[in-house]
Amino acid sequence: MGSGYHPPAPPLQVAQWFNTREPLTLKTLRGRVVVLHAFQMLCPGCVEQGLPQARRVHEAFSQDQLVVIGLHTVFEHHAVQGTPAALQAFIHEYRLRFPIALDEPHTTLSIPRTMQALALQGTPSLVVLDREGRVRLHHFGHLDDLRLGTLLGRLLAEPALPAAVAAQSATGCDDSGCRRPDMPAP
Amino acid sequence: MGSGYHPPAPPLQVAQWFNTREPLTLKTLRGRVVVLHAFQMLCPGCVEQGLPQARRVHEAFSQDQLVVIGLHTVFEHHAVQGTPAALQAFIHEYRLRFPIALDEPHTTLSIPRTMQALALQGTPSLVVLDREGRVRLHHFGHLDDLRLGTLLGRLLAEPALPAAVAAQSATGCDDSGCRRPDMPAP
Amino acid sequence: MGSGYHPPAPPLQVAQWFNTREPLTLKTLRGRVVVLHAFQMLCPGCVEQGLPQARRVHEAFSQDQLVVIGLHTVFEHHAVQGTPAALQAFIHEYRLRFPIALDEPHTTLSIPRTMQALALQGTPSLVVLDREGRVRLHHFGHLDDLRLGTLLGRLLAEPALPAAVAAQSATGCDDSGCRRPDMPAP
Amino acid sequence: MGSGYHPPAPPLQVAQWFNTREPLTLKTLRGRVVVLHAFQMLCPGCVEQGLPQARRVHEAFSQDQLVVIGLHTVFEHHAVQGTPAALQAFIHEYRLRFPIALDEPHTTLSIPRTMQALALQGTPSLVVLDREGRVRLHHFGHLDDLRLGTLLGRLLAEPALPAAVAAQSATGCDDSGCRRPDMPAP
Repeated sequence: MGSGYHPPAPPLQVAQWFNTREPLTLKTLRGRVVVLHAFQMLCPGCVEQGLPQARRVHEAFSQDQLVVIGLHTVFEHHAVQGTPAALQAFIHEYRLRFPIALDEPHTTLSIPRTMQALALQGTPSLVVLDREGRVRLHHFGHLDDLRLGTLLGRLLAEPALPAAVAAQSATGCDDSGCRRPDMPAP
Repeated sequence: MGSGYHPPAPPLQVAQWFNTREPLTLKTLRGRVVVLHAFQMLCPGCVEQGLPQARRVHEAFSQDQLVVIGLHTVFEHHAVQGTPAALQAFIHEYRLRFPIALDEPHTTLSIPRTMQALALQGTPSLVVLDREGRVRLHHFGHLDDLRLGTLLGRLLAEPALPAAVAAQSATGCDDSGCRRPDMPAP
Repeated sequence: MGSGYHPPAPPLQVAQWFNTREPLTLKTLRGRVVVLHAFQMLCPGCVEQGLPQARRVHEAFSQDQLVVIGLHTVFEHHAVQGTPAALQAFIHEYRLRFPIALDEPHTTLSIPRTMQALALQGTPSLVVLDREGRVRLHHFGHLDDLRLGTLLGRLLAEPALPAAVAAQSATGCDDSGCRRPDMPAP
Repeated sequence: MGSGYHPPAPPLQVAQWFNTREPLTLKTLRGRVVVLHAFQMLCPGCVEQGLPQARRVHEAFSQDQLVVIGLHTVFEHHAVQGTPAALQAFIHEYRLRFPIALDEPHTTLSIPRTMQALALQGTPSLVVLDREGRVRLHHFGHLDDLRLGTLLGRLLAEPALPAAVAAQSATGCDDSGCRRPDMPAP
């Protein structure tokens, strides 16, 4: 939280999406605040605190302004909780309605790819992006609703960039890398 | 919440202050966000939800930016809960640390004066003022932490007025009434 | 809890009863389990835990078998919470339905008479009597529902004394003192 | 709850035990009260209410008197939650310490064998056996701690059968079936 340098979030690397008609990308979500809840289905703190909070945030805001994404970052018990079928059953039983991404497993490491790229310390983790896709909160553990709400209020109060700049900015950082905004796209 | 016309809050009319060295006025609090929690010590919803939330807000923010004020608006059981001694004992037992005002009783009506001036519907009530002293939330009942936090984040993101304008604005509304800001003070 | 010597409870000394058509005495409650919840209206632990538990116990059992009595043992802030009017307002606002006794104030001590006779350490306190009026639990602070329920189940499983013995036993301890059960009543 | 005919519980049919050095049988638990908590790891009501209650009961009583057994009765999402590895990971992450049995799957039905034999309606379910192994509570859904505690207190107050009768009774019902107690064992 607070001021300082806010790097753009790296792109999501996702094995499978749930609760959304088509894959989401941070690029197409520019202009909106994004709340990423990293969880594991066998993580008690995620089930008891993180996911209920994600649900409350999802229900409190218009998706035009703010999008909640659950990120299933399996880094242990892969055989049990790492499959799409396991996540599907969990989402069904817990009646989760917001978009959820199964973080792309790494071929050799136990830490999946988006978790690695975001340098998350564990689950639950909360990553909040501003309308320009920059990381404004990077939090391991639970953050209470009052503090999270305050941050979201601040970020929602920030104007979206004008369309032209936003478009340019949107091209600034993509899967191939990040370009200086004052440089023309190729 | 949301946009629209936001009138300045009327001045507080207080019989006695607790937890503060000198009386507070909304005028001297200009430049800060103000959260008013109206309660009664015999109101279960206030004791169970309103005051714990007021405590959380008081602890979450720097008083340079945001001030919480408890307002004891006694409109029933006056003999039991209406005296300064009753409020003092309650504050002591519940270990409340933020400034608390005993709303000035009316000579003939059961509704005390600040409650009347703010047109509160009952307790608990939540009134939030922006940095310019305008009413931005006027809520009867409980408001969850996520929504309250979001509003506070928005209001804290709004710039305080420049000192000169603020001073002028500050003279705009005082205990004697409200003056047009473009009119010179007498 | 557990085995051992269980003295009969001393009689209640009550300034005023609420929520009951006529005064209750432990003597007439023989044959039933009695749960005494000692509280003060300005005691946060009583309001948050003790009284909600008393309400749950009152609602869970038939009054033929078990009776809950609230005992307002004011030992501080007498001017604020010690009057019948204060207790009446509190009972009204918190919608308490079970019988409640205002413990008889002492003329010179701050500790009221029943609290003194029961040697309570403070509020909340829980005193549970078996069907014969003997003290089977004497607990300062909160006791969780599982443990309280277990004790109540045990006591309810104990047979009431046959009527004749009970009558004799009932005459054993009254407001004038306690007589040996093998001694004839005068 | 209450009086009436209380049939002996059928024997447990278990694919694998966790948190116990050797398999438990209801027969060897005669003389103690047994609390069976039937759950599924993907059942929100089990995770939020049933298992925390099982943990509280396990911690509140001496195992000489009362034994808690978790029974993982998988009747849906078998591929995800039905394996011993899945249950092992769940037990590890939720730090469950009491004995837990994986209910023996049926070869053709989705309902596992002990769940079938006990005629459970779903999860969470609570089955409580008295010291003689008879079903005294058969409850689908959550039962509050006060009511559960009351039942446990009643059952703990019941005397265990004399050893001779208990031994005879213990031979009455085993994995091969139930024999009339007045008939000699083969």
